[in-house]
Amino acid sequence: MQGDRTGTGRGTVAVIGLGSMGLGMAGSLIRAGWTVKGCDVSGPALDRLAASGGIACSTPAEAAVAADIVLCVVVNARQTEAVLFADGGAASVMPKSSLFISSATMAPDDARKLARRLKEMDIFFLDAPISGGARKAADGALTVMASGEPAAFEKAEGVLEAIAGKVHRLGDEPGTGASVKVINQLLAGVHIAAACEAMTLAAKLGLDLGTVYEVITGSAGNSWMFENRVPHILEGDYRPLSSVEIFVKDLGIVQDMARAERYPAPIAAAALQMYLATAGAGMGGDDDSSLARTYASLSGAILPPLKED
Amino acid sequence: MQGDRTGTGRGTVAVIGLGSMGLGMAGSLIRAGWTVKGCDVSGPALDRLAASGGIACSTPAEAAVAADIVLCVVVNARQTEAVLFADGGAASVMPKSSLFISSATMAPDDARKLARRLKEMDIFFLDAPISGGARKAADGALTVMASGEPAAFEKAEGVLEAIAGKVHRLGDEPGTGASVKVINQLLAGVHIAAACEAMTLAAKLGLDLGTVYEVITGSAGNSWMFENRVPHILEGDYRPLSSVEIFVKDLGIVQDMARAERYPAPIAAAALQMYLATAGAGMGGDDDSSLARTYASLSGAILPPLKED
Repeated sequence: MQGDRTGTGRGTVAVIGLGSMGLGMAGSLIRAGWTVKGCDVSGPALDRLAASGGIACSTPAEAAVAADIVLCVVVNARQTEAVLFADGGAASVMPKSSLFISSATMAPDDARKLARRLKEMDIFFLDAPISGGARKAADGALTVMASGEPAAFEKAEGVLEAIAGKVHRLGDEPGTGASVKVINQLLAGVHIAAACEAMTLAAKLGLDLGTVYEVITGSAGNSWMFENRVPHILEGDYRPLSSVEIFVKDLGIVQDMARAERYPAPIAAAALQMYLATAGAGMGGDDDSSLARTYASLSGAILPPLKED
Repeated sequence: MQGDRTGTGRGTVAVIGLGSMGLGMAGSLIRAGWTVKGCDVSGPALDRLAASGGIACSTPAEAAVAADIVLCVVVNARQTEAVLFADGGAASVMPKSSLFISSATMAPDDARKLARRLKEMDIFFLDAPISGGARKAADGALTVMASGEPAAFEKAEGVLEAIAGKVHRLGDEPGTGASVKVINQLLAGVHIAAACEAMTLAAKLGLDLGTVYEVITGSAGNSWMFENRVPHILEGDYRPLSSVEIFVKDLGIVQDMARAERYPAPIAAAALQMYLATAGAGMGGDDDSSLARTYASLSGAILPPLKED
């Protein structure tokens, strides 16, 4: 059986990984009429899926059985490999000609390896990292950077339509989507760190941070990340929308790739050190704007007070 | 005499420093009905001023005599000090209660020192760095980050109106405008370097650079500088709109200030090294997007071919 069709004419998607991104994508799929089966190591995440109309499963295989498409939104290549090939993994139950959509950020070589292993099993692979954050995931408005063979895109069409505001088709080769995502993460990670370095220096100089934010967002020093993250610093609210550990991982991938390519990336390397220092100081699970607190603790700068919950 | 009034009711402004920014500002002032006297060490710059209706002068003093306002758009604090106080400097001929507008990027302490020296001579000082680039200067649409006493702002009003799209009033103290500009330059300088690091890595990975540009400008990795400078790389056009040496200077100011404040700024420090390497390799006078060429020469990445003039 190729998935249980519903009255809306949509099929079944297994969403593996129900963090803020995966759960938002699952919700978008449910609203678009798909049957969604989900799996996560976190019990509360499964409860949230069930509350929004999805079917909670205890293993990737249980979610993937009888699904047309498996959408994998875990953290990295290692987890993606486990979702597919560990005990209780999805690959063992996925039928021939079904589709695996891989949305974790990973090195392009890892995406290519996974694609090759699935191809040997006659399973299609779409290399499809995402950008946009938790809010856009919930709104079905993500940016998807995708590559894979035309048949993979064709099978993915309804799912991409439900989750994405914009799909970049980056060619037929798995790995291209991953590469472009890594380039995006290099920039995003550096821009957050630069925003924290600049705003904490502004605090050290005694400037009014709200005014600096207003000036910079209208000037050539602006970035998407500056505009998005600096309000967390101004409000003293470091509850994680995206955690420090995400960029420990993603700038780690940048460094690994750059080293393998014999490519010097000193700016990304300096930024990674600040994420590492912030995680090492105990803030790895906090919002990535917490780098500002590291700069403050290293310099005596006074940031806006921490928000009380 | 407080300046030769013209039929339009505007007075006379001396514009010192006729690079792409100063010349654009002079043009905006002329269009707004001001009499503009200008001074620059470059003969061709003086010819361009005369061609657009200004009066070419050979020293700051010659330009400043009988001017209501001196607008100084040179490169740094040292040049600004020379414009005022060297032989043939403007301060010696500026009448009491006239206004000096300082638009060079400089450390806040330097702005405060200049303000103090002029105050002893009863000359007003507006700390008024600018942002926006050559095109906005030509269009009278710059962003001005200004601080100074209310009387200085009052005297500057007509000039600011002619040159700026947006004037940020940052308080009564000289030095605040300079500080905010330095924060902006930290971000702008890092973002250009990060754009070059990321795009040249994309080239090394064999990605299509035009596609990467399109994806990133619609994603969270975007910055004002990425969007503005990467087209120079795509076109292989490194003719200077803003040169590498500008950020050797401005990130140098960031490092000097940060060191004085005992503030670690590792991302800006790494970016400065790339500007230094690019200038050291002989590209100091080329467009700041030339950092991409440094990354390419260090890694073997192939960038789009150099544009033929």
